[in-house]
Amino acid sequence: MADLKSKFLQVYSVLKSELLEDPAFEFTNDSRQWVERMMDYNVPGGKLNRGLSVIDSYQLLQEGRELTEDEIFLASALGWCIEWLQAFFLVLDDIMDGSHTRRGQPCWFRLPKVGMIAVNDGVVLRNHIPRILRKHFREKPYYVDLLDLFNEVEFQTASGQMIDLITTIQGEKDLSKYSLSIHRRIVQYKTAYYSFYLSVACALLMSGEELENHIDVKNLLIEMGIYFQVQDDYLDCYGNPETIGKIGTDIEDFKCSWLVVKALELSNEEQKKILYENYGKADPENVAKVKALYKELDIEVGS
Amino acid sequence: MADLKSKFLQVYSVLKSELLEDPAFEFTNDSRQWVERMMDYNVPGGKLNRGLSVIDSYQLLQEGRELTEDEIFLASALGWCIEWLQAFFLVLDDIMDGSHTRRGQPCWFRLPKVGMIAVNDGVVLRNHIPRILRKHFREKPYYVDLLDLFNEVEFQTASGQMIDLITTIQGEKDLSKYSLSIHRRIVQYKTAYYSFYLSVACALLMSGEELENHIDVKNLLIEMGIYFQVQDDYLDCYGNPETIGKIGTDIEDFKCSWLVVKALELSNEEQKKILYENYGKADPENVAKVKALYKELDIEVGS
Repeated sequence: MADLKSKFLQVYSVLKSELLEDPAFEFTNDSRQWVERMMDYNVPGGKLNRGLSVIDSYQLLQEGRELTEDEIFLASALGWCIEWLQAFFLVLDDIMDGSHTRRGQPCWFRLPKVGMIAVNDGVVLRNHIPRILRKHFREKPYYVDLLDLFNEVEFQTASGQMIDLITTIQGEKDLSKYSLSIHRRIVQYKTAYYSFYLSVACALLMSGEELENHIDVKNLLIEMGIYFQVQDDYLDCYGNPETIGKIGTDIEDFKCSWLVVKALELSNEEQKKILYENYGKADPENVAKVKALYKELDIEVGS
Repeated sequence: MADLKSKFLQVYSVLKSELLEDPAFEFTNDSRQWVERMMDYNVPGGKLNRGLSVIDSYQLLQEGRELTEDEIFLASALGWCIEWLQAFFLVLDDIMDGSHTRRGQPCWFRLPKVGMIAVNDGVVLRNHIPRILRKHFREKPYYVDLLDLFNEVEFQTASGQMIDLITTIQGEKDLSKYSLSIHRRIVQYKTAYYSFYLSVACALLMSGEELENHIDVKNLLIEMGIYFQVQDDYLDCYGNPETIGKIGTDIEDFKCSWLVVKALELSNEEQKKILYENYGKADPENVAKVKALYKELDIEVGS
């Protein structure tokens, strides 16, 4: 396992070098350094679960046959494309949310020399994906399917992010806009497709499968993705900050979290009033009242 | 000609309706309204030269044969993809530049309800392009070439934007970073590929041509694009604001404009000192000194 991860990280170095020598653009020395620093800061620092799972899924689809070096490289390259996609979204999300830290370091746009250039850097990261695909998959029969897949999943993710952003504006005026069905739709599109479906879909394409023959697999992975996000919402409130690596602020930030949606569903009129008056406020007293209501409704354990 | 433009605008309505019913995403009513308003605000309001030129170029490549309705629709759809690409870049550029107006109205992100959501809206606009291509070109033999073309040109544009942004930070510390060669590289990548090459390349692909057989056409269009941008830089300073639709502020904004680059080239040490001391300052007195130097160096007429 440690071996797989170190092989995966070696592929990152190869892809990075290739991107920094891309013949479609004449880098200046300064811009080449900028992109290298920007990639190193934003792409490889996560848990890499999404990327590694392309290799795992592909291995499983080969039913025990040992993979060739070439297959491991290609599966890793697709895995890195997912990590690149994630990096693109995180760089831009942090700007939109006004976040301060990410993966234990300041958000990229918070670095003094970066600022709003981070918007374009996010776009550059996104553009690296088709560069990687073209360099390594151009001659494969499934090349066009890979392009379609990444395009569709990116569209779904951006659309999910959009309903999340719009719902939050409206929720701030009227909490009743939050419901289980809107929560489900947000997490399905914003998280599940790129975090759960995409890696398996990449592995299927590499195995010569047609994606339309595996709609059942897709639906299952989307359910898993939704469940994952519900758990993530739960941990934001009840997880140990040292384990989850951050101090959750969903209550303060007026997030359409599974917890508040469930609480709204279970609340009587009086309890709803408490939520309306206290949700989305930074003051610890307001937060404590929301948490007390969650307890009263048995949300922590009862779910 | 008026007829062509009205046909072109009708295609916009068709594409918009299709995007708002895209089966890859389950819109809420609010999000459908949001996207419609966002597209109408940002996509069709420009001069539409880039988009219209796909139809013109395709017509010329057919050597006088009258185009079918289907051909006009497809050429228009590709034209709109270029307009969508431009809208995506402008929405994000305005955020990065802190601009106030665009095409005679407030920049999208300046609208009170929009703000930083505009970052994601830009991404959504960009994602509309592969949706349009897939819907209307999926079965065409040149479908994969269209995807590659748009990906490559977007990569070049974002890379050009990046060297522009980086050079401006460094130029602010040291004007000597500005030179004719860096100016050329910025405008070639940031403007020429998507504004001049892309529309003709789309028309070539639709005509069944291979792009690698037309490198000479590409090089010529890139030269035209660079010339266009030099002219644009010139008009920022000397154009009639009523004609060009804006009051130029390149001098105030420390832009790597062709004028300052040319002035640096022609200046002796004393004149350089004037540039170093006055370029990039908002005070009209500083601006006047820069313009006086341009006059002294005969940049307005002598070029």
